[in-house]
Amino acid sequence: MPLPWQRATLFAMNEFELIEHYFRGWSGTHPDLILGQGDDCLIWHPLRATVMSIDTAVEGRHFPPQATGAQAAQRAFLPALSDLAAMGAEPAFFTLALTLPSPLDDAWLTDFAIRLRELSELHGLVLAGGDTTSGPGRVISLQMHGLVDAPMRRSGVQPDDDLWVSGFPGRAAAALPAVLNSSAQPPSPDWLAAYWSPQPRIELGQRLVTLASAAIDVSDGLVADSGHLARASGLDLVIDTQRVPQAPSFKGWPQQQVLSWILTGGDDYELAFTAAPRQRDALIALAASLDIPLTRIGRAQAGDGQALIRHNGLPHTLAQTGFQHF
Amino acid sequence: MPLPWQRATLFAMNEFELIEHYFRGWSGTHPDLILGQGDDCLIWHPLRATVMSIDTAVEGRHFPPQATGAQAAQRAFLPALSDLAAMGAEPAFFTLALTLPSPLDDAWLTDFAIRLRELSELHGLVLAGGDTTSGPGRVISLQMHGLVDAPMRRSGVQPDDDLWVSGFPGRAAAALPAVLNSSAQPPSPDWLAAYWSPQPRIELGQRLVTLASAAIDVSDGLVADSGHLARASGLDLVIDTQRVPQAPSFKGWPQQQVLSWILTGGDDYELAFTAAPRQRDALIALAASLDIPLTRIGRAQAGDGQALIRHNGLPHTLAQTGFQHF
Repeated sequence: MPLPWQRATLFAMNEFELIEHYFRGWSGTHPDLILGQGDDCLIWHPLRATVMSIDTAVEGRHFPPQATGAQAAQRAFLPALSDLAAMGAEPAFFTLALTLPSPLDDAWLTDFAIRLRELSELHGLVLAGGDTTSGPGRVISLQMHGLVDAPMRRSGVQPDDDLWVSGFPGRAAAALPAVLNSSAQPPSPDWLAAYWSPQPRIELGQRLVTLASAAIDVSDGLVADSGHLARASGLDLVIDTQRVPQAPSFKGWPQQQVLSWILTGGDDYELAFTAAPRQRDALIALAASLDIPLTRIGRAQAGDGQALIRHNGLPHTLAQTGFQHF
Repeated sequence: MPLPWQRATLFAMNEFELIEHYFRGWSGTHPDLILGQGDDCLIWHPLRATVMSIDTAVEGRHFPPQATGAQAAQRAFLPALSDLAAMGAEPAFFTLALTLPSPLDDAWLTDFAIRLRELSELHGLVLAGGDTTSGPGRVISLQMHGLVDAPMRRSGVQPDDDLWVSGFPGRAAAALPAVLNSSAQPPSPDWLAAYWSPQPRIELGQRLVTLASAAIDVSDGLVADSGHLARASGLDLVIDTQRVPQAPSFKGWPQQQVLSWILTGGDDYELAFTAAPRQRDALIALAASLDIPLTRIGRAQAGDGQALIRHNGLPHTLAQTGFQHF
């Protein structure tokens, strides 16, 4: 129960009315969801293992203050969903803890809710519960729930595995100056799309379960997240800068800038994963069948659990090569 | 990935270091928790049904700005846990989405984390995952997960069922003036305890599963939450003000004030539940065995799904009787 001095002035509508107005009556059910919104708890009873991840998007930190409600929904929902992709899971449902400043901005919230509903229907997740409260700013926490038989873990890297990455990472990072300042040099449209609407690699993740030894979604940057795989597995992962995939729209940009975007930009939510060399043909075929570029960018080797960079055939660190863009 | 202009100034430590420092290495495991913190998702694989509830506590709204870290942990964790009690569930694990202002207040966060750990160990829940981010204020979202065979729902009320409540509700509401203004008249110590450390009725909830027809935890007030049971069940629930349990520490206070606290105060997180009249003896015995007062305060009857009040034998509304304290 909220403190009384703010309760009366919270919103023109109370929490029940707000949920009823913006977040009820969405389509979609899941056979293992015994009870969804409207009781003290939801009830979930699947036969398979459930994977879950909670993710927060804060205005001014994960999306800029000028973001529309729909853009905020995308920047909250899609990165959260990406964690299910990284485990190879089948999305099932999500819960929403939504904190909004008072007074309520109906236009923003309507835009947010409509886009959240579209995204949840597009990706097949039921909104199964939540909590709405007023607070000092827009804070959106989503817990995603998926089903999986044999989830991929970060700790599965084997010696001599190949390191792969999906898509063309780095474009969301390249878009940032224009995201933060609309008068900045207009970027390529595919950069803005990569930032505002990252594509969680859900189907790819599910297909990788039988091929990959470990996987992670790239949220902190290709080198940083490869480092998470390396650390969890107790091996080094060596990334060859000559192998990293360069988006066609990077053509003409300085190589050092491009490598900085690719190696340290994380907002694209591509998958980085490892697989035994004998899986190369299968992965090339998978890339063709899903129409998603899969690029072999490095290799696992004995070490103390770090991601290393090989640039023009020589070992480098991010600091040495100046790839960091801030 | 956070926006770069704030990333460098976020905290003296990055998110990985922060989690490592404050939230790792806590004791406790659960046999159905296949994988906890440290990967893209946690993995959960029980045989029984899982109940889940997400709850947010915001500074300045669910706890006052002067609350210590420990007090904030209590006001976030215990109400969230109470939702498991209301379903009759056995607590299993929780996830934490924690938003904190920058720069990091180490003393506050240490106090918060220590108390959160104590509470989780006391109640037998593993911290299985989370997300930490900087933001405009303290926002604490917790998702609680429990196991249950036959969860109690709000919709199970039957005609002629008795309405019961546990404990002595209203004391947390009575404490509010002193919570908000430490120079207010010092309340009874048990009132402050009821506010700062509500006791989720976990064991009671589990024992009620075979006795009660419906249950809810009282977070919005006894009348409001009885109204939720009534609405979900399509029956009216009539609360008799002469039957509501009055805490010994209410002695000497004006009856209208006391009834306001009891009927509209929700912060105690007692359970309101319904049961068939044939369960009266079993419930009286249960109250004795758990040493928790259980009081029969009303009855279900045909109606359109409301909680009604009978005061001195006559129907009243909250507005008429002036029980509302703001």
